[in-house]
Amino acid sequence: MTKPADKPANKPGYRPLESLPTTTDLADFKVGVDTVIFSVDTEQNRLLVLLVMRHEKPYSGYWSLPGTLVRVGESLEAAADRALTEKIRVNNLYLEQLFTFGGPDRDPREAEDAYNIRYLSVSYFALVRYEDTALIADGVRGIAWYPLSQVPKLAFDHNQILTYGCKRLRSKLEYSPVAFDVLPETFTLSDVYQLYATVLGEDFSDYSNFRTRLLKLGILEDTKVKTSRGAGRPASLYRFDAEAFQPLKDKPMVFL
Amino acid sequence: MTKPADKPANKPGYRPLESLPTTTDLADFKVGVDTVIFSVDTEQNRLLVLLVMRHEKPYSGYWSLPGTLVRVGESLEAAADRALTEKIRVNNLYLEQLFTFGGPDRDPREAEDAYNIRYLSVSYFALVRYEDTALIADGVRGIAWYPLSQVPKLAFDHNQILTYGCKRLRSKLEYSPVAFDVLPETFTLSDVYQLYATVLGEDFSDYSNFRTRLLKLGILEDTKVKTSRGAGRPASLYRFDAEAFQPLKDKPMVFL
Repeated sequence: MTKPADKPANKPGYRPLESLPTTTDLADFKVGVDTVIFSVDTEQNRLLVLLVMRHEKPYSGYWSLPGTLVRVGESLEAAADRALTEKIRVNNLYLEQLFTFGGPDRDPREAEDAYNIRYLSVSYFALVRYEDTALIADGVRGIAWYPLSQVPKLAFDHNQILTYGCKRLRSKLEYSPVAFDVLPETFTLSDVYQLYATVLGEDFSDYSNFRTRLLKLGILEDTKVKTSRGAGRPASLYRFDAEAFQPLKDKPMVFL
Repeated sequence: MTKPADKPANKPGYRPLESLPTTTDLADFKVGVDTVIFSVDTEQNRLLVLLVMRHEKPYSGYWSLPGTLVRVGESLEAAADRALTEKIRVNNLYLEQLFTFGGPDRDPREAEDAYNIRYLSVSYFALVRYEDTALIADGVRGIAWYPLSQVPKLAFDHNQILTYGCKRLRSKLEYSPVAFDVLPETFTLSDVYQLYATVLGEDFSDYSNFRTRLLKLGILEDTKVKTSRGAGRPASLYRFDAEAFQPLKDKPMVFL
């Protein structure tokens, strides 16, 4: 299907696109949805991800991201909600689409199946407030908030999906005020710093710089209440000022 | 499948997730890829999108985003490359995944088909330098760079996919140095401003503020060459300083 030599296509430097596959038969797919649900345990400063234990083949006995296969007449979003509905109860769950993984051979069920059916996964992402969630443990199926640093080898390509989710989470923290969705209603500047450090790693910024830049954004309201924790000086409690943030909502900003 | 009343799930304020669909049969899918390829005509200050004319049902005679259906053994990315390979030649085409549209009833072929097959679309996005592209016009199939302001009603839900692509393009311009991928190697500050204004709209910033902020980023190198255009004073030519940008690459930044 290459074009003849007199076409501008042959100008040097043009990138040769991938060659055509040898069959023109269309692939048949089942479509799965997988969810990457993060939370931050602000008391222990741990980033957590929701995992469920698989009890059927393939990967029976492995931990995996909560997911399901899309049913007749069902939207992707409804399937993602269904995947979570029996596992976790949560306030204000807002699932954001993350990435679609659809390469051949990503699911061992493809090989077992003589009909060449492929499994595509549309992944979704959310960050939820730890205190606002309740796992639905029925004693049979395993479900857990796993500290990110202790996540084992997961079923399918779920470690890869999780890595992608982590990248998106860091980016959300840098470019959106999502941190204030998961902090308590009032918090100290040190609480905010600790949340960022938990997600981005301790060396993302020093506290003094972070504090200065954060206050300069003008989106935090000083409640005039002070809190004492441990031996340090009492620290001011702030709250996210949604009204002050309103005019900035559509402006590109950096939140650290 | 609602949990009994003694579970924490019933704490007031918990969001009721969507109810289960009435069938548990899995949906069968064909998977399409659609590409949103943007370019900027810097001479006429127009934002362009690549469209192709459809010559088969459904939507025969409508313009659409270049796309195709995924074949047996083919990755999503290879299918997206294939959709473009006979239509456009381009330097350094880097396709980025945009969004997956998979709701029921998004494709009229679903209704015609007794087997209940659904069509899911994984969309991809790229911004290419206008001068580095060549459309492959074979006189039969229609292919065109359409000014965004003149895009007609497209086939399927492609107007919706395009809207999503525009949103991503604006965000890329705000949060990444992608503008310098499509500008000529040397450019004036006014050229950069004009490119941003073409994509973001004239009122995104005033020129003087934009110029100050842009220079402050420290990623532009003054070539010490001046250019004269029209009646104005000669303007300095700059080039993107990839070396100066290197240490900033992973830092969250705003580029306007």
